[in-house]
Amino acid sequence: MSELMGPEELEAALRAIGAARYHNRHPFHALLHGGKLTKSQVQAWALNRYYYQAIIPLKDAAILSRAPDREFRRAWRQRIVDHDGDEAADGGIERWLRLTDALGFQRDYVLSGEGLLPATRFAVEAYLHFVRERSLLEAVASSLTELFAPAIISERVAGMLASYDFIGREALGYFDKRLSQAPRDANFAIEYVKREARLPHQQQAVLRALEFKCDVLWAQLDGLYHAYVAPGHVPPGAFRPEEAAP
Amino acid sequence: MSELMGPEELEAALRAIGAARYHNRHPFHALLHGGKLTKSQVQAWALNRYYYQAIIPLKDAAILSRAPDREFRRAWRQRIVDHDGDEAADGGIERWLRLTDALGFQRDYVLSGEGLLPATRFAVEAYLHFVRERSLLEAVASSLTELFAPAIISERVAGMLASYDFIGREALGYFDKRLSQAPRDANFAIEYVKREARLPHQQQAVLRALEFKCDVLWAQLDGLYHAYVAPGHVPPGAFRPEEAAP
Repeated sequence: MSELMGPEELEAALRAIGAARYHNRHPFHALLHGGKLTKSQVQAWALNRYYYQAIIPLKDAAILSRAPDREFRRAWRQRIVDHDGDEAADGGIERWLRLTDALGFQRDYVLSGEGLLPATRFAVEAYLHFVRERSLLEAVASSLTELFAPAIISERVAGMLASYDFIGREALGYFDKRLSQAPRDANFAIEYVKREARLPHQQQAVLRALEFKCDVLWAQLDGLYHAYVAPGHVPPGAFRPEEAAP
Repeated sequence: MSELMGPEELEAALRAIGAARYHNRHPFHALLHGGKLTKSQVQAWALNRYYYQAIIPLKDAAILSRAPDREFRRAWRQRIVDHDGDEAADGGIERWLRLTDALGFQRDYVLSGEGLLPATRFAVEAYLHFVRERSLLEAVASSLTELFAPAIISERVAGMLASYDFIGREALGYFDKRLSQAPRDANFAIEYVKREARLPHQQQAVLRALEFKCDVLWAQLDGLYHAYVAPGHVPPGAFRPEEAAP
């Protein structure tokens, strides 16, 4: 039986999970921001990561659809606006597509999901199923990887701009926005979790939810590394840089 | 728009997918049956593959729960008996646990799912979600990888017995049974699919379902290869042979 933690102790335990398991520790991340990847490898990353971006509003809508509190919903719905855009701003999905544009992909190909690694599809959809099936508290906790996003984004943007002449500042607009959005969202979610996880089994569930989400991110980079960094392992049906550019 | 195929043409198209994408073509399979793996690598395979075995009766129950035809249910329910066992026979899950026993795992550890690769969990659960969410026809079609199982099983058993002194005949009892069960099950499923897929879009859905299932199997071996054959990529939290034997 686990003991009840105070709110600050719970936050420290969550941050310890991020320190150990967030995907900034993955070798693919080091290659990406260190400028060690070929253009094809960066293409594969952007193409696969698009699928994760595309599912974020569905994930947030699933959370909205389960939240009985109006104030909660008013705050959470901003995430959907941020990703899908509105009259005033394009939104995160559109900004991600500018990156895949800049990398030379046709939008139809990116949107179709053709060429995705099955590992990407399985990991991303596992996230969607998790927020639909687990408690609201766990669903909110699984968003807490955003606590660790600003550091990785800064590294990534600086490293990519310095290293890849095929990527310009405007192609990385997605990340500029996330630098302010992620802390705002993460702050709301961590306060919610610290307030609502009042029993030891709830606190444990919150910790497991964040581990799960770290696994979702890590498994995506594992799939990319295996398919596109280690030689010769692109699975059947997935994007192959050596074939005619899609 | 696709054209309508005759039943034999549909079967040929399904078999072509197996020939191109079934996991007997995966490099990990060649290493496994070719005797090229260490005991730790065989352990990792058996541990992760257990999770796939464990979910099979849930998958078949999901199919049963959606099948309006009594004759269909009478035939399909045998799959659950085969995996879960009855008074007369142990069932496939128990036989798989004899393999993990023989490899030196504690049953509690195997049953707990601790040490599983997230890639295994995501791929296996994608299969379960697929049969719950797609049409009954697609769910049945996704079982058709069993058409290709006898060949891989024969290769695997002969290769493993010849190559690994830590595996004996009795540890491979799972595969003996599957040599007769898989063709019976696959025959029922292929006849069902050939009879029920009567429109071009249904036939295309059936082909995509089999591709999806091939991806589920392939991604599991990708995960194993990346984590345990390529050096240094075991993801956080997964079974590490170098640590104290679980």
